[in-house]
Amino acid sequence: MAGNSFGELFRYTTWGESHGIAIGCVVDGVPPRLPLAEPDIQHWLDRRRPGQSKFTTQRREPDKVRILSGVFEGQTTGAPIALAIENVDARSRDYGAIKDQFRPGHADFTYHAKYGIRDYRGGGRASARETAMRVAAGAIARKVLGEGVGIKGALIQIGQDRIDRANWNWNEVESNPFWCPDAVAAARWEALLMDVRKRGSSAGAVVEVVASGVPAGLGEPAYDKLDADLAKAIMSINAVKGVEIGAGFGAAELSGEDNADEIRIGNDGKPLFLSNQAGGILGGISTGQDVVVRFAVKPTSSILIPRRSIDCFGNEVEVVTKGRHDPCVGIRAVPVGEAMLAIVLADHLLRQRTLRD
Amino acid sequence: MAGNSFGELFRYTTWGESHGIAIGCVVDGVPPRLPLAEPDIQHWLDRRRPGQSKFTTQRREPDKVRILSGVFEGQTTGAPIALAIENVDARSRDYGAIKDQFRPGHADFTYHAKYGIRDYRGGGRASARETAMRVAAGAIARKVLGEGVGIKGALIQIGQDRIDRANWNWNEVESNPFWCPDAVAAARWEALLMDVRKRGSSAGAVVEVVASGVPAGLGEPAYDKLDADLAKAIMSINAVKGVEIGAGFGAAELSGEDNADEIRIGNDGKPLFLSNQAGGILGGISTGQDVVVRFAVKPTSSILIPRRSIDCFGNEVEVVTKGRHDPCVGIRAVPVGEAMLAIVLADHLLRQRTLRD
Amino acid sequence: MAGNSFGELFRYTTWGESHGIAIGCVVDGVPPRLPLAEPDIQHWLDRRRPGQSKFTTQRREPDKVRILSGVFEGQTTGAPIALAIENVDARSRDYGAIKDQFRPGHADFTYHAKYGIRDYRGGGRASARETAMRVAAGAIARKVLGEGVGIKGALIQIGQDRIDRANWNWNEVESNPFWCPDAVAAARWEALLMDVRKRGSSAGAVVEVVASGVPAGLGEPAYDKLDADLAKAIMSINAVKGVEIGAGFGAAELSGEDNADEIRIGNDGKPLFLSNQAGGILGGISTGQDVVVRFAVKPTSSILIPRRSIDCFGNEVEVVTKGRHDPCVGIRAVPVGEAMLAIVLADHLLRQRTLRD
Amino acid sequence: MAGNSFGELFRYTTWGESHGIAIGCVVDGVPPRLPLAEPDIQHWLDRRRPGQSKFTTQRREPDKVRILSGVFEGQTTGAPIALAIENVDARSRDYGAIKDQFRPGHADFTYHAKYGIRDYRGGGRASARETAMRVAAGAIARKVLGEGVGIKGALIQIGQDRIDRANWNWNEVESNPFWCPDAVAAARWEALLMDVRKRGSSAGAVVEVVASGVPAGLGEPAYDKLDADLAKAIMSINAVKGVEIGAGFGAAELSGEDNADEIRIGNDGKPLFLSNQAGGILGGISTGQDVVVRFAVKPTSSILIPRRSIDCFGNEVEVVTKGRHDPCVGIRAVPVGEAMLAIVLADHLLRQRTLRD
Repeated sequence: MAGNSFGELFRYTTWGESHGIAIGCVVDGVPPRLPLAEPDIQHWLDRRRPGQSKFTTQRREPDKVRILSGVFEGQTTGAPIALAIENVDARSRDYGAIKDQFRPGHADFTYHAKYGIRDYRGGGRASARETAMRVAAGAIARKVLGEGVGIKGALIQIGQDRIDRANWNWNEVESNPFWCPDAVAAARWEALLMDVRKRGSSAGAVVEVVASGVPAGLGEPAYDKLDADLAKAIMSINAVKGVEIGAGFGAAELSGEDNADEIRIGNDGKPLFLSNQAGGILGGISTGQDVVVRFAVKPTSSILIPRRSIDCFGNEVEVVTKGRHDPCVGIRAVPVGEAMLAIVLADHLLRQRTLRD
Repeated sequence: MAGNSFGELFRYTTWGESHGIAIGCVVDGVPPRLPLAEPDIQHWLDRRRPGQSKFTTQRREPDKVRILSGVFEGQTTGAPIALAIENVDARSRDYGAIKDQFRPGHADFTYHAKYGIRDYRGGGRASARETAMRVAAGAIARKVLGEGVGIKGALIQIGQDRIDRANWNWNEVESNPFWCPDAVAAARWEALLMDVRKRGSSAGAVVEVVASGVPAGLGEPAYDKLDADLAKAIMSINAVKGVEIGAGFGAAELSGEDNADEIRIGNDGKPLFLSNQAGGILGGISTGQDVVVRFAVKPTSSILIPRRSIDCFGNEVEVVTKGRHDPCVGIRAVPVGEAMLAIVLADHLLRQRTLRD
Repeated sequence: MAGNSFGELFRYTTWGESHGIAIGCVVDGVPPRLPLAEPDIQHWLDRRRPGQSKFTTQRREPDKVRILSGVFEGQTTGAPIALAIENVDARSRDYGAIKDQFRPGHADFTYHAKYGIRDYRGGGRASARETAMRVAAGAIARKVLGEGVGIKGALIQIGQDRIDRANWNWNEVESNPFWCPDAVAAARWEALLMDVRKRGSSAGAVVEVVASGVPAGLGEPAYDKLDADLAKAIMSINAVKGVEIGAGFGAAELSGEDNADEIRIGNDGKPLFLSNQAGGILGGISTGQDVVVRFAVKPTSSILIPRRSIDCFGNEVEVVTKGRHDPCVGIRAVPVGEAMLAIVLADHLLRQRTLRD
Repeated sequence: MAGNSFGELFRYTTWGESHGIAIGCVVDGVPPRLPLAEPDIQHWLDRRRPGQSKFTTQRREPDKVRILSGVFEGQTTGAPIALAIENVDARSRDYGAIKDQFRPGHADFTYHAKYGIRDYRGGGRASARETAMRVAAGAIARKVLGEGVGIKGALIQIGQDRIDRANWNWNEVESNPFWCPDAVAAARWEALLMDVRKRGSSAGAVVEVVASGVPAGLGEPAYDKLDADLAKAIMSINAVKGVEIGAGFGAAELSGEDNADEIRIGNDGKPLFLSNQAGGILGGISTGQDVVVRFAVKPTSSILIPRRSIDCFGNEVEVVTKGRHDPCVGIRAVPVGEAMLAIVLADHLLRQRTLRD
């Protein structure tokens, strides 16, 4: 109820603060006899890990995951799977300057309003560090989905600079530090972000994540629609301010005849949609087409440019956030978005099983 | 788990099909001793009711709500509140033509894939008729929130035609059949929609809903963030394809310094935000500013223009959807969006109470 | 959260007060394409219906159930199934005498303490009338379980008079007004209860319910153990004060070697337990043997013998409960116990499906 | 859904196997600003710890708990509290003998039936070791309840030997290795259990746990009745086979007039119940009297006396369970029962807060 868990049948709970002893999660509801070992999870964590390029935070965390339970002789047992990562580079420094200040755009003010206490070290529970555990849980979700379902993500916009979708190349995504599918845009972004950083500012971004091979029929019609659960999952990622499915906000501008995807029978004798404005979801249930989700990430609020704010005693102050921060936190949101997509799909895959005799 | 319920502490469950005997809901978790009578709910249902202008479906439903339980001598008792509305204008007509066809853009195909059976009469459970119960539950949520919290909504775009925000006038919203806050745009939309209708087509729309007077501190930090729950609530409304909070997708284009709302101490000695890019939510928790949510509604898929599709036997067919339909279903989505906003806030208001001694 | 729902995947929510307009429930999570019609439910309701013998309340309720949604052309559709029963014999009488009094042994005092308001007419929400909806939901649960699972119940003790288990005959259960499997005891109980009634008193009882044909493997190991969920389900029935599985409290008196059921291979090549002290559940998971649950029902608190109490103004009063009441409410608890057993098993059957690929 | 969590608002999730790396839990929903440190939890763990007398298992576990998150500068923050205990004395021994056998009375058979795989080392997830985490979570629950609520437990029966309630002395409970409130019985039990042990057998037990100072009004009327949730909580403890509230099964033998507790106004002007057959709960809601719960614990199934069983290949075998086991597991169930009582009360205390304005 305090909201540190996500999912119904595939359900995980995260814990830990940015500068505490460790962070971790418990993943419950994983079917038994799935092969699972630490490298299966580490692989995805490494993609999200900070400190890998000059465009992400310089905090150096090995983010080495340990499986503490639920796996026996290389297989899941049906018992809850506990994962933990020690916090290594949680520098013990002087927080005196900011411990009483509410940094603009941060959760400092709202945590104080809600709890009357907050762990101010590195953002505490509000830190994006929590997303490491989303990626870890996402790795297990991928195991539940099996190899038939592919999940990929890409950064399609930084600030006001969008990719050219004609240049889209999934192979390119792994070749630049932005997960950018457009090599031309990636080159521009290098300069763009260097400039942002130099100015002590930050930039927002738009991410697109896509799942292929999703069977038709996943999602519950009314409130737990597949897209509704995806919207929640994605909006729950730190700094996300908008989420859309398929044509998304663009659908508002289409005519009814252009928006509704027509269907024919394909050469394989199966239903073949002639377009995918729906983003693979109709009436909250998957169609079997690619599930396409896009989301907006606001610019990092931790910037070097002085901003006006107040402190918890009611004094007006000026805030500058030093420390190691991402100039564009949207970059590291790509693997997190993929993980949340995997988690929602795994949960609904298990839910759909309950309808079968 | 089958997803016909929403909310955790303020929790409601809906039931009923478009052309069944009735539709209804059970609202659980309503605190005792709130004054409640049928007109309190009917007031909001009347705003959503179809058949009130030429721009909404001509189905004539009085949508007269009955309270069946949970209210005694004019007050809530803490027991579950059951509401029901009889289906009156559920025309018994020949569904032969469409009962086996999958209408493009509709849930016909996905319900069939999921369940292997569907109540095809008027869309069955997938009908937007279900949203009447959201509005009814929303009316009770408003009682829980009390008079200090105000919730309003407006249509800000039809097709590609957006309002001019400089013209925004909340009084105007009740004066035109579109809930449009811009009198100039409303005049244009009249012509625009007449044309859409004449062509047998339909138009999408964008809705904005705003809550004022929300206390700071509502929302749970990690997965049940206030914005995450709002995203789910809104995306679960039929035909919604995108949702954003505050600056939303626009936040991706802002610099860190323009996006992070600065804070000062106001003349009343209280914190005063100098802008509201955050849409009233930071770190998933309300700031006390207006909560601002925007969402995109796709154009109605029921159109007179013939579309290619298939039937459940695997035959290719051409589909024309006759009957009484909304040329722009986004119009009636306004009161539904307001209701979902009220429901999420009421739920989190009750959740926040658990932290107090 | 307000607790009017039960079950996780097979989940139902009840509403309604004893003397309100109607009572009802919504059953969610029922798999599609199960045959279901009103007589399937009415059959079980008729067994619980009051007014059928002189040993149950003389309230005359036809308890005619209506299916309002979720069934189409004789089959479930996967949509929520709403059921309702009108209250017919809710006599409008003068409650003046008891509306401010707290009847000893009743929930009057605690509802007042909890809510500060209560619907005092006939017990309101606390009335055993709510159990009709448990029986209705149980009828649907039986459909989910299928014909391979048999669920039966019997009254095995009234007051201090226990049956002789050597006389157990399931056929006898339907032949006397007590659901008693021992014809000799049934004869004694007739006199016993006539005497109780004459004295204006009431008697407690013990019920046993048994499920056969339950597949091995149902139940979740830690907190949602099959027996834990059964304990909750049964203890939630009005007036129940104790519940036990298999040998139950008697297990405390057994030696380890007598308690642990030995296993051999049966003639059919399958595991064969040589006894069933476990009541069909080990480690919270079904063994495939009969699931055996026993529960104690306290004597009806509504009695004609004057009792000391207080009213809501803090005055000491003497209370006599007139009206139509069961001298032994345990009798009508038999079909309710059966229903709860069916509901818990159906829920866990669906849960077990999620583990299968 | 896989059932490793308990509670709604005060909600915790446990993980870990008997012979794995560690065991742990995450406690969510703890209100902020409660003082909490490791010794607060360790205190209660020490009471449950094995190896403290010859009447409990000789496994030597220091059971040293660590708080990994959710506490900052000695206070809870509202963030999830992660606790972990390393497994120290998890002897790596040869399990060859029993890894394929189904020990009678154990969960071996049912885990195999459910999952098709099991961690056989020391019982894996089914081990009573999991209950250490119940005690840890219970320690936090006590903090939520505050000092006004007192929770105590006692062993009142071993095998067929019951205490004399006239001898009840709470001080005595801490003075013998059985948590026995009757010094005379405690003396008898010493001999009784020595004999049981010598024979390689085991004995069952009955435990009583009592909460005083519970405010009236806790519990939700229909399915989440306070007693229903207690029944589930208690029945979910390993080896428990029966649970009762107040007079419990004895209530079935009482007359209506003897069972219904009368009420007067006490000298303090407050309601005063003249007896407590109800065990502090009416209609599922606390009355303000002591909440009294009793439960039966079956004899340990791990015994030295050979028993007939089968293995997972379908062979008939004879099983002897060597190793370090409790001759009467009911003894260590006392602190576990207390913990579950505290947890259920804390959960309902938070739930009740949601009704207050």
